[in-house]
Amino acid sequence: MNNEAALPLECPIPISEYPRVTMAHGGGGRLMNDLVEGMMKKAFSNPALLAGHDGAVLDVPDGRQAFTTDSHVVTPIFFPGGDIGTLSVYGTVNDLAMCGARALWLSAGFIIEEGFPMEDLWKVVSSMAKAARKTGVEIVTGDTKVVDRGKGDGIYVNTAGIGVIREGVFVAPSMVRSGDAVVLSGDLGRHGVAIMAEREGIRFGTPVVSDLAPLGDVVLDLMNAGLEIHCMRDLTRGGLAGALNEIAGTADVTFSIEEELVKVTDAVAAACELLGFDPLYMPNEGRFVLVLPADEARKAVEVMRKHETCVYAGIIGRVSPREHVGVVMKSRIGSWRVVDMLSGEQLPRIC
Amino acid sequence: MNNEAALPLECPIPISEYPRVTMAHGGGGRLMNDLVEGMMKKAFSNPALLAGHDGAVLDVPDGRQAFTTDSHVVTPIFFPGGDIGTLSVYGTVNDLAMCGARALWLSAGFIIEEGFPMEDLWKVVSSMAKAARKTGVEIVTGDTKVVDRGKGDGIYVNTAGIGVIREGVFVAPSMVRSGDAVVLSGDLGRHGVAIMAEREGIRFGTPVVSDLAPLGDVVLDLMNAGLEIHCMRDLTRGGLAGALNEIAGTADVTFSIEEELVKVTDAVAAACELLGFDPLYMPNEGRFVLVLPADEARKAVEVMRKHETCVYAGIIGRVSPREHVGVVMKSRIGSWRVVDMLSGEQLPRIC
Repeated sequence: MNNEAALPLECPIPISEYPRVTMAHGGGGRLMNDLVEGMMKKAFSNPALLAGHDGAVLDVPDGRQAFTTDSHVVTPIFFPGGDIGTLSVYGTVNDLAMCGARALWLSAGFIIEEGFPMEDLWKVVSSMAKAARKTGVEIVTGDTKVVDRGKGDGIYVNTAGIGVIREGVFVAPSMVRSGDAVVLSGDLGRHGVAIMAEREGIRFGTPVVSDLAPLGDVVLDLMNAGLEIHCMRDLTRGGLAGALNEIAGTADVTFSIEEELVKVTDAVAAACELLGFDPLYMPNEGRFVLVLPADEARKAVEVMRKHETCVYAGIIGRVSPREHVGVVMKSRIGSWRVVDMLSGEQLPRIC
Repeated sequence: MNNEAALPLECPIPISEYPRVTMAHGGGGRLMNDLVEGMMKKAFSNPALLAGHDGAVLDVPDGRQAFTTDSHVVTPIFFPGGDIGTLSVYGTVNDLAMCGARALWLSAGFIIEEGFPMEDLWKVVSSMAKAARKTGVEIVTGDTKVVDRGKGDGIYVNTAGIGVIREGVFVAPSMVRSGDAVVLSGDLGRHGVAIMAEREGIRFGTPVVSDLAPLGDVVLDLMNAGLEIHCMRDLTRGGLAGALNEIAGTADVTFSIEEELVKVTDAVAAACELLGFDPLYMPNEGRFVLVLPADEARKAVEVMRKHETCVYAGIIGRVSPREHVGVVMKSRIGSWRVVDMLSGEQLPRIC
């Protein structure tokens, strides 16, 4: 299936006529119709979308499916290593992958601020189209709203996604068992640092690029390797610390990890020190933890390292029965500390 | 299934401690966790949601399904006859019904402006929970983002929905045939007038209340009656004129309707005249058109009128081969006029 050529190179809406999105582009009239037919349908072209219905009609394979949603409010919308469009597709594809599901279909809901440059809208939409093709999903239904100037921030993008789960796969926080190993898929903190640097206009000697990446393929390989995956979780808002604490809460276990085994690049470590952030809490957009029986962990790492996004994959700790707190970490000097969930947040609007 | 009692009557987040939503409520830390666990999961309680996964895992019946999404940006968020919460559930349930699907599962994506009153968030969330129970859907997955003050407008709610389509049902604009009849489910314009009146502080002698209503039950009855439904479309943004023009474009036909047969209440007619609006373009949230073979139209009207939201259901016109334009209307004095799609919009942020 190669319909890459079908994606127009330039904005298909005449920029000279409509350089900026107007309230009428969301009003249900001809301008909205032009935007949907002329831009969205050209970019996301597929039979379900082109049917022009109130929703997409889909032929569903037998079995179980996963369903998820995320609204994306990242600022700035263009950042080193990606943009809000790519993020909105990979983010939802990754959430489905974390459920052990292969993503098939996405919805796209746009909330656009009046005055948003049409050219930027096209960039976002074509990023979404490219990301969808790369991950093998179709954007089959959508919605566009325009809000008055000052009532938004350029563009917000919601995606919801449906994926299929193959027979025999039961991946969930509740499957986590004492004695399991914890595998981390790569180095931490690049997405958060890339966004903060861009937002604050900070330049580093080595530029930090977001780790934004799709995780469907590596998860598929893990499942194909016949591994008994208990739980996976991508490390977005709240970072590694947030993800492990959430799983620990649901599974009623304690995670013990070792700082020495958690990979952070020198550039990210330096930036975090400068900005006063802890990499454990930094959001990522292409990293995940995998929890599985300890005797399968080495094999999992081997499978993961074959993927470019997982070259730093490694075992970082293990699961034990619940002991008061969710996550503890052995520092480089050998002392143990509690890794709590943050009360508030380190970084607003990171995804 | 009666778990109505499980919905807390009062806001389960301590208002005295957090009277307003803070950036940290969207930050991936403990406060967000408190909001999700303490409010969302209590309101929407169901096994898929409570599993605490990155997405909901669902057992899907065999066959085809419909998938749709809508972002809701209505202002004001509380209006006569409903609020943004009820609207966001019924709107998506109705879009699924229009595909001939029975809605089963919804996602909910919140974009909340920093400073939004916690009490109002609870009102919106509990409206969603009630609307979900009333329509038999479960809100199985969700996402909460908080944006800085001045970058939103209180609250925006995206819902995406999945519904199942029974064997043998093929409802789509492309099924519309010349000779078909057009049935309108009720009087036009109440939602638009109710919102505008509230927004502009206009008081009418007879208060106009939104027609907001779920359409799943009446559609189910239509299908159970064995009618050969060709197409259905709810009359939201763009109103009756927008919906018919869209279907006409996809099906390559012309609709001829009669003004005399299109029901508009006196209160709405008066308000539209005062405000300079045309009821044909006014948005509705509980009205739809049904296109089906002419000899089945009477039976359809009979079935529809048994439902409170469809007491004014009636045949308003017919379908003929395409003749230059999408929709023509015979006026009360017998002359014909073209009913075009509006270029822009009558009413911004109506849904």
